[in-house]
Amino acid sequence: MELQAVVDEIVHEVQPMLGEGAVASYIPSLGQVPAGNFGMCVAMSDGPVCGAGQWQDPFSIQSISKVFSLALVMSYDYDSIWKRVFREPSGTPFNSMLQLEADNGIPRNPFINAGALVVTDRLLTLTGDAAGSVRGLLRKESGNPAIDFDDEVAASEAQHGHRNYAMAHLLASYGNLENPVELVLENYFKQCSLRMSCEDLAAASRFLARHGVSAGGTPFLSPNQSKRINAVMLTCGTYDAAGEFAYRVGLPGKSGVGGGIVAIVPGRCAVTVWGPALGPNGNSVAGIAALDAFTTRTGWSIF
Amino acid sequence: MELQAVVDEIVHEVQPMLGEGAVASYIPSLGQVPAGNFGMCVAMSDGPVCGAGQWQDPFSIQSISKVFSLALVMSYDYDSIWKRVFREPSGTPFNSMLQLEADNGIPRNPFINAGALVVTDRLLTLTGDAAGSVRGLLRKESGNPAIDFDDEVAASEAQHGHRNYAMAHLLASYGNLENPVELVLENYFKQCSLRMSCEDLAAASRFLARHGVSAGGTPFLSPNQSKRINAVMLTCGTYDAAGEFAYRVGLPGKSGVGGGIVAIVPGRCAVTVWGPALGPNGNSVAGIAALDAFTTRTGWSIF
Amino acid sequence: MELQAVVDEIVHEVQPMLGEGAVASYIPSLGQVPAGNFGMCVAMSDGPVCGAGQWQDPFSIQSISKVFSLALVMSYDYDSIWKRVFREPSGTPFNSMLQLEADNGIPRNPFINAGALVVTDRLLTLTGDAAGSVRGLLRKESGNPAIDFDDEVAASEAQHGHRNYAMAHLLASYGNLENPVELVLENYFKQCSLRMSCEDLAAASRFLARHGVSAGGTPFLSPNQSKRINAVMLTCGTYDAAGEFAYRVGLPGKSGVGGGIVAIVPGRCAVTVWGPALGPNGNSVAGIAALDAFTTRTGWSIF
Amino acid sequence: MELQAVVDEIVHEVQPMLGEGAVASYIPSLGQVPAGNFGMCVAMSDGPVCGAGQWQDPFSIQSISKVFSLALVMSYDYDSIWKRVFREPSGTPFNSMLQLEADNGIPRNPFINAGALVVTDRLLTLTGDAAGSVRGLLRKESGNPAIDFDDEVAASEAQHGHRNYAMAHLLASYGNLENPVELVLENYFKQCSLRMSCEDLAAASRFLARHGVSAGGTPFLSPNQSKRINAVMLTCGTYDAAGEFAYRVGLPGKSGVGGGIVAIVPGRCAVTVWGPALGPNGNSVAGIAALDAFTTRTGWSIF
Repeated sequence: MELQAVVDEIVHEVQPMLGEGAVASYIPSLGQVPAGNFGMCVAMSDGPVCGAGQWQDPFSIQSISKVFSLALVMSYDYDSIWKRVFREPSGTPFNSMLQLEADNGIPRNPFINAGALVVTDRLLTLTGDAAGSVRGLLRKESGNPAIDFDDEVAASEAQHGHRNYAMAHLLASYGNLENPVELVLENYFKQCSLRMSCEDLAAASRFLARHGVSAGGTPFLSPNQSKRINAVMLTCGTYDAAGEFAYRVGLPGKSGVGGGIVAIVPGRCAVTVWGPALGPNGNSVAGIAALDAFTTRTGWSIF
Repeated sequence: MELQAVVDEIVHEVQPMLGEGAVASYIPSLGQVPAGNFGMCVAMSDGPVCGAGQWQDPFSIQSISKVFSLALVMSYDYDSIWKRVFREPSGTPFNSMLQLEADNGIPRNPFINAGALVVTDRLLTLTGDAAGSVRGLLRKESGNPAIDFDDEVAASEAQHGHRNYAMAHLLASYGNLENPVELVLENYFKQCSLRMSCEDLAAASRFLARHGVSAGGTPFLSPNQSKRINAVMLTCGTYDAAGEFAYRVGLPGKSGVGGGIVAIVPGRCAVTVWGPALGPNGNSVAGIAALDAFTTRTGWSIF
Repeated sequence: MELQAVVDEIVHEVQPMLGEGAVASYIPSLGQVPAGNFGMCVAMSDGPVCGAGQWQDPFSIQSISKVFSLALVMSYDYDSIWKRVFREPSGTPFNSMLQLEADNGIPRNPFINAGALVVTDRLLTLTGDAAGSVRGLLRKESGNPAIDFDDEVAASEAQHGHRNYAMAHLLASYGNLENPVELVLENYFKQCSLRMSCEDLAAASRFLARHGVSAGGTPFLSPNQSKRINAVMLTCGTYDAAGEFAYRVGLPGKSGVGGGIVAIVPGRCAVTVWGPALGPNGNSVAGIAALDAFTTRTGWSIF
Repeated sequence: MELQAVVDEIVHEVQPMLGEGAVASYIPSLGQVPAGNFGMCVAMSDGPVCGAGQWQDPFSIQSISKVFSLALVMSYDYDSIWKRVFREPSGTPFNSMLQLEADNGIPRNPFINAGALVVTDRLLTLTGDAAGSVRGLLRKESGNPAIDFDDEVAASEAQHGHRNYAMAHLLASYGNLENPVELVLENYFKQCSLRMSCEDLAAASRFLARHGVSAGGTPFLSPNQSKRINAVMLTCGTYDAAGEFAYRVGLPGKSGVGGGIVAIVPGRCAVTVWGPALGPNGNSVAGIAALDAFTTRTGWSIF
């Protein structure tokens, strides 16, 4: 069967599921997105792209931005970030602060909030503009110069972000931030507020399916770096459900509370899905079902 | 380069590393194994086998046995084990009991001790002889009828096993054991005491590289089950260093305190290494280095 | 007002409260005690005793026995027990095993189960018969030679005691038991099964209100030791509600899941109450209310 | 022996101990206080005062201020603060954030930092000036209008206060602050920076030894409220060493990292000590030794 037909079928199949879960509502702007939206896109590493549903509608990528800030930091500064953040799964959710205290301020991995703050802090030091660098990478790799921050979402996050403030101050108390807490958080909230479509996101993620080669054909990351980011996505990319995601989907992936997920089939393609209603672990319910169906039909699991 | 040459080279390269780490000594029998031993074996899914070093010397497989007890339980009873054990990485080491308490007696995954006890308990119910079933599977898949328990090691584990007794009683207090604590532990200590060589272990693990097809050519597991065990190995197979293992090696793997590690390249081969000296996370130092070198040279990482 | 009248009034007042809470039912024998029972007794340090309600009916003293095993250990061996157990409040309930792990097997205080097991273990070493020693002390101080173990309760505890087995094995894994796990637990379950009335318990506790002087007039403990046991009771005697008990009652006290509580007014009297229905923290609901009323009316709070 | 002689002797006796422990140095201003200072004062509830050593030198009262903010809140608003903060000992130190997360933002007691922030927040709502109210109470009860904030210490705390910022934001994330985080922290740092001598502090604490009656002879707190604050001090007043303090000293007490401790003998006197060098739990080493000697000599322990 043609890939377009596979994607069409999957988008059709998940429709009954779009009512399940709940749209993130801790900030007003996110809560207004209709739960019935769903989009999916596959961007093959050698060019072809196909999509279905609302695959060209922009959404808030939120935590998916953490993949790109990590990639940027590694592109500048191969391995030194790993002195300031581990790369192990985080275990049970309630122990995030316990873990930081037990490990003297070294976050468990770059995809939990504490770790992502450290990565953003490092990127800020390296570039002077962490959020702008992430936006620049996404524009360049997707070819869409219109990709931008959603100032309302960023402001709303800042206003309701006491937990992130707590985390950033705790990191600072351990000396694990190089820049002022306010500046790190401002960049973090901005990078999370980036809006783009499944189509743009799949295109922008393609370098992870091409061993680090950028859209322009030049190496953005080394093959080794690309492989390693995929490994971190697999073990840590979907909050406290990384084991479940590996078990069901069998691909490296990173989700966001905006309902998006990006998954990588190394050497083959990048897949993006978007369905705003989230399950208990903060991952898109329909999105995971769609990716599960995708690897089942194509046989493209890495396992 | 030929695979045999790759394996020879790697075994040569890791020699200087054999002094690093420490041989497990919490029970006397394990502590007597010389740290200088090292073996490696690759068993291709379509038959050919090559090895180097002490690849034909038997060692105590310890926690590697957990892969086979899980496979057996899934072969009988597809998915019901997941009601009694999660499949998420365990996070920080010190919270194993905390986690059991927080999750009402459901262990985090089948490869931490608490979870493995639940799997052994289930296998005991299904077969009447959990340890014997694991031995039977290993004999059949490897073709070596001499594989057997090491009674001295099993007895020694029982004698020094207060922590496993504590864990089993805690599981029982939550109603998550079907059989008496003593019987479950006896089977658990026996299955962990199984002795076999890299060669036999690679042969016996080959079904996970063959989408579940057994040595005899018949399906032991479905392709889906095989894929899922690989996923659980990747996210949970190397104690608290699963993220590190995925990052460096990039393969599903399971280690044991006897110094063995089995890794799977899905669709292609099973690889086993054995080096008794362990790093701080309980994984063979030289073994991980050898597997890292293996995926780097062959390019057979799943990422 | 006369003390007898105060006690009569309090017993009258708590009657409507006897339905609140729930009788401990984790072992069948305890669950059969009618929730409507209530007794109270005050034993003045200089002799007089008064009581009301079912103050002469025996009940299972359970954890109250921990005060007497601690007193015995201190009587033999002044201060050395504190190398093996701390004397700090335990904090949140869910972290008992976490705490043991974090503190390398040293329990938080002698009144949580882990700490009481260590005390019983020590008493076993010192006397050869820990449970018998506790029974002997209670008989001697109360003057009632009929006080005895309830074998059915002890057997039932052993049968349902997986959590205590887990705790004891965990202590043993840290080398913090001198005797075999089974023997320690047997003594522990026996001492907890002791049955006696409010009257006998008040008489037997009087030495803590008399600066350590026994019923026979000779020093059982030094004044300093007696003071210190009272201090540990105040900070650690009522499970995770020690702060609440100090706040409401304002006396050193120790409760048991049989519904009994003993409280000490240093220099003045021992007070016992018994009401089998327990609140969420495992303390007798009516018992705490009665002790609250007692200090309010008499003004005998230590604060 | 006369009380003055007792105090003189104790101050003499602790001199060799003044080198033990370490002066708090997390902010520069605190670290400059000489470790050799020591003062002690006893203020009898019926008037007489005696002191020795540097008992008239001012020091930074730090966490001792938490007693007075709690007393003020209770004076306005009897019991409602207990909906927002528990009154249980905190258990092991490393779980402060874990506890807040497990209990949905309700701190364990009013004397750990998280709980004190909630009390200050409430006082801010009730009075519009929390720090000013605490200063006003201390001036009035001590009769010394010169008692004041140390602006340098307060500013230094704010600058190095990432951990308190983290805690305050975490409380805010659970909706347990009524006022802006910045304002609460400003008041908190100011109240902690108050400087006064042992003499003034003993006089100002006397109402807790007089069943709530203020220096002016009118009730500031009810007898019941006074009793309850003493109970909370006993179970929670000395960080993670409350059990130890009760065991050794046997009095309700509250310590601060400036090296001061206030202890109450209900119905009799308030005792203050000051020695800047702290033990591992953050309490003055010589101060605790002095209080231990005090209750041993006078027999005024509450147990």
